[in-house]
Amino acid sequence: MSFDVLQSKIKAKRNPTVAGLDARVEYIPPFILKKHTGKHGETLEAAARAVLEFDCGLIDALADVVPAVKPQSAYFEMLGWQGMKALEEVIAYAKEKDLFVIADIKRGDIGTTAAAYSEAWLGVTQVGSTACPVFDADCVTLNGYMGSDAINPFLKDCTSRDKCAFVLAKTSNPSSVELQDIVAGDRLVYTAMGDLIQRLGQGTAGKCGYQALGAVVGATHPSVLKELRYRLDKVFFLVPGYGAQGGTAADVRFAFDELGRGAIVNASRSIMCAWQKTGKDGADYQEAARTAAEKMRDEIKEYVTIL
Amino acid sequence: MSFDVLQSKIKAKRNPTVAGLDARVEYIPPFILKKHTGKHGETLEAAARAVLEFDCGLIDALADVVPAVKPQSAYFEMLGWQGMKALEEVIAYAKEKDLFVIADIKRGDIGTTAAAYSEAWLGVTQVGSTACPVFDADCVTLNGYMGSDAINPFLKDCTSRDKCAFVLAKTSNPSSVELQDIVAGDRLVYTAMGDLIQRLGQGTAGKCGYQALGAVVGATHPSVLKELRYRLDKVFFLVPGYGAQGGTAADVRFAFDELGRGAIVNASRSIMCAWQKTGKDGADYQEAARTAAEKMRDEIKEYVTIL
Repeated sequence: MSFDVLQSKIKAKRNPTVAGLDARVEYIPPFILKKHTGKHGETLEAAARAVLEFDCGLIDALADVVPAVKPQSAYFEMLGWQGMKALEEVIAYAKEKDLFVIADIKRGDIGTTAAAYSEAWLGVTQVGSTACPVFDADCVTLNGYMGSDAINPFLKDCTSRDKCAFVLAKTSNPSSVELQDIVAGDRLVYTAMGDLIQRLGQGTAGKCGYQALGAVVGATHPSVLKELRYRLDKVFFLVPGYGAQGGTAADVRFAFDELGRGAIVNASRSIMCAWQKTGKDGADYQEAARTAAEKMRDEIKEYVTIL
Repeated sequence: MSFDVLQSKIKAKRNPTVAGLDARVEYIPPFILKKHTGKHGETLEAAARAVLEFDCGLIDALADVVPAVKPQSAYFEMLGWQGMKALEEVIAYAKEKDLFVIADIKRGDIGTTAAAYSEAWLGVTQVGSTACPVFDADCVTLNGYMGSDAINPFLKDCTSRDKCAFVLAKTSNPSSVELQDIVAGDRLVYTAMGDLIQRLGQGTAGKCGYQALGAVVGATHPSVLKELRYRLDKVFFLVPGYGAQGGTAADVRFAFDELGRGAIVNASRSIMCAWQKTGKDGADYQEAARTAAEKMRDEIKEYVTIL
């Protein structure tokens, strides 16, 4: 229950950042991809095996720098069931390396369907009298457009299995304004969603003071981060949009509380694809990823001190 | 492009309904589940094989009654990669039987991630110079909370591959009011979402007059169906909430236009689990499903004539 586990890992590594694992086929160093297409042809199986090798290599390189990784389900789904098999293995490998795993799935559905999603990603699936863990991540991202029916089944698994979830509030992308910034009385739609998140999480706060239900708030809106940090004082933030999308260390500092807690900042491509900028065709992808992750940690350290 | 393919299948079978394939393990007739757990133990593999057999049996029973099936991703994800493998096979089998396949995934993400989802579910994944189809459904459901960034990559695949998508507008569940019914100026949030759906779909209308981007509007809100049918005249509706959730044939008639077109009504459990009410322990699951599907078709026929 709550974000205590994540917060303690952040503190131990003095690094409030999470590395996204979003491997499109073209992000994989060519020597890895070739190895597998050489054996299995240009197939989904080859791509899935290449992604698995790449992601596990990244995990090895980053395991003592970052507290968490965030595999994005879409990049595994696009490789079919072989991709989903790779995702199961990536999650297990990251946990073995003592990393906190946020499955970026942004699911949102109701009733028994939401329960099924929660069993898939946080809980266990019951087959006869046997409880089978499935993807078994530590945390997921969710979409709350359908309201509390889409959230509560996950909260149940969070509470009973010491896990947590982030619900989209204000996202980092340009078109987030189209729905999220609509004026609704004295609030905007994203503020209303934020209020709902804080309300639904009531009673699940851990030692760190944060409830089991966090919110996604983009780095590209520093004034929103400031406003929501103040308004949602029990809600842990996942902050995407750092780097490529324009968010800076100066921007994301507003996501943290006065003790430097309560938020984690994501970077995906800047770490994963760092090898594309060193001119070595990916031979140094691990070193390049590690250097990029350390750089990001140090940039944020300029503005945020974790007490 | 557009909903022409679906509308023509609806017309051919004189039946504007879609059968949901939402098989939780406990919905599978015991004799099917036992066959597979006997061979593979109480494992995800056994459950996935049982779901595959059950879903294909339902498809056989329903193929000349309903125009479409709607597998719900959650119930396959909860069985891990074996479940996703079963889902690939269920989709392929339904298409072989000339059924229109709506993958109920409710995905919503941005940029390259939305593109990856679209490649997974509607398009193809490129591995080197080879284009690999993945789940390859005819249609998907989407969540538009993140705005057009989450929709446009799918529209691109819809246009180039003659497919379509439904975006959540007003859902059938009780807590849909929490966000969707918030007053926003002279609209509600779901009306704003509906307007966005109609706007984004511009330029993709087919012969039937409906654009490639449809909307999900629940059967449990007949007045909303009426209002949105009038307001969103180029938007095809997927209508969940019939039966178990309380929506009736008299309610859903408002989803259709004056030619009896422009909507499809979903039923899942009432068809899939019809065997639970006949006292035969599932031996007659196909016949029971078929009878339930025919009953639903005939109920709606009382109110809707497809021209």
